[in-house]
Amino acid sequence: MERRGEFALITRIRECFETIGERDIEGIGDDCAVIPMAGEDRMVLTTDLLTEGIHFLLDATSPEELGRKSLAVNLSDVAAMGATPFASLLSVALPERLRGEWIDRFMEGYRELSARYGVALVGGDTTSSHSGLTVNVVALGRIRKDRIKRRSAASAGDLIVTTGVLGASAAGLRDILAGAFDTPLASVHRNPEPQIEEGAWLGERCEVHAMMDLSDGLASDLLHILRASGVAARVDSERIPVASGATLQDAVAGGEDYKLLFTVDPTAFDRLAIDFERRFGTSLCSFGTIEKGEPRIEWFGARAAICAASRGYTHF
Amino acid sequence: MERRGEFALITRIRECFETIGERDIEGIGDDCAVIPMAGEDRMVLTTDLLTEGIHFLLDATSPEELGRKSLAVNLSDVAAMGATPFASLLSVALPERLRGEWIDRFMEGYRELSARYGVALVGGDTTSSHSGLTVNVVALGRIRKDRIKRRSAASAGDLIVTTGVLGASAAGLRDILAGAFDTPLASVHRNPEPQIEEGAWLGERCEVHAMMDLSDGLASDLLHILRASGVAARVDSERIPVASGATLQDAVAGGEDYKLLFTVDPTAFDRLAIDFERRFGTSLCSFGTIEKGEPRIEWFGARAAICAASRGYTHF
Repeated sequence: MERRGEFALITRIRECFETIGERDIEGIGDDCAVIPMAGEDRMVLTTDLLTEGIHFLLDATSPEELGRKSLAVNLSDVAAMGATPFASLLSVALPERLRGEWIDRFMEGYRELSARYGVALVGGDTTSSHSGLTVNVVALGRIRKDRIKRRSAASAGDLIVTTGVLGASAAGLRDILAGAFDTPLASVHRNPEPQIEEGAWLGERCEVHAMMDLSDGLASDLLHILRASGVAARVDSERIPVASGATLQDAVAGGEDYKLLFTVDPTAFDRLAIDFERRFGTSLCSFGTIEKGEPRIEWFGARAAICAASRGYTHF
Repeated sequence: MERRGEFALITRIRECFETIGERDIEGIGDDCAVIPMAGEDRMVLTTDLLTEGIHFLLDATSPEELGRKSLAVNLSDVAAMGATPFASLLSVALPERLRGEWIDRFMEGYRELSARYGVALVGGDTTSSHSGLTVNVVALGRIRKDRIKRRSAASAGDLIVTTGVLGASAAGLRDILAGAFDTPLASVHRNPEPQIEEGAWLGERCEVHAMMDLSDGLASDLLHILRASGVAARVDSERIPVASGATLQDAVAGGEDYKLLFTVDPTAFDRLAIDFERRFGTSLCSFGTIEKGEPRIEWFGARAAICAASRGYTHF
């Protein structure tokens, strides 16, 4: 829900609103807000705004892909809380040139992902636009109170883990910007796969402490966990899982991988990794530890300088 | 949540998604979606997308007014269900020229209305925009299951009622478009007053059947109730409550009044009107009846021809 560079504005807004409303709502500051429901149930919700020319280029993506991706990035935020998505809202400001077939194909992509995970479309808004296309999606999820994974739950000693290899999306974006739209990496960038089932599965495991999704790059996103938890991190530059065809810099600083990043009790990691691989057929990757200290990342190993020089993706 | 002219797209979307997701969610088709919660509680939610040049002109509104109005139109949809709003999400695509003081003033207006009704800002998204300003707001409300007011609940014999006079906003927009930004009517247009307390109060009254808010004009909005309920209406053209300074056509076809439109058991109306006036200091206005028949409005009385020639506001 937030990105580097927007920090000053978001911090001002958060401070300005923190005294308004019910005390038991968790608002700005995590992947999702958390709304109390009766008993042990909680609702999580998140929103993402995508604008033409900033988040996507219409000539580099099909309408179906854009529809699918608009929902995918929000479902990823729900999964990052350990929750299961069940509904969405979709708002579209639509330029004249995109009516008819274009918006029908966009909706087909949105529908395909909705149907796969049983996510109902419960509302939205459509309007014309005199300028570019703008898409706003809200996703809602449900979770039991004691299963919620927050950014603030990392403890010194935890291992730092991702649910897969990183950097493929950034490498794919590089292909696209060079005019190669149909490479395997470009396809990864255009079709992000939110880890819905992995998120809900990790939500059930109490040895998983902090969790979030990787949308802005490891270096930037890990800092969110460190700041929220008041801890530091040591990351082994040689164990960061880099996707085939991507560079270490893509893995550290590239955005939109939509893998999950979490911290875990070190005594429970081996068991978790075995169970995860049995369930999903892919490996968990551990590449660092949470330490006491100020929120910063200490990169070590032979490739530490490359990591330290990298910065996460910035929207403005 | 929807407007005339968007019907074809929204109908296609609704049909295309109606088999996806949980059976007990009420989605597209009313002022808000209704989400089951435990026990007797329900959550309602709604979203509105406002785009520069379509819904507002930046030189005809102050930043504070636009911030306030962005939230107000959504709170009005929550009130229209009989529910009480408690949280919102705000997404803004912000052109470079509006950073700094402009967005701070926008947030001040948004905050003022949030604080008045205890509505927490629980999340959102901010991004830059290469073109115009776009604002998307989601509002959430709570209500007891048996209190929800749906568009589909009108019965033959019901009286048709509004919570106040109509047309002031349309007349104010006319002033603004003529360059007179500071008339009393222009101020009404720029500062819509959502009827939060009125909506929750009417929600408690079981004699109130169908309800919605007047955002697109009486002629257009009443048809939503008629179609959803499968009934017709007879409206007395001489009893439609027209705001001072507005025309009958403003009242029938003008948008953005944000008064509530509802139908009520005729035997209970006098008592309701007395109680409403005692509570809010303003009068309910009854000007028609629900009839058996196909969904259409029969205008009668001396000014029926003016009403019949009017059409509601259309976005595209």
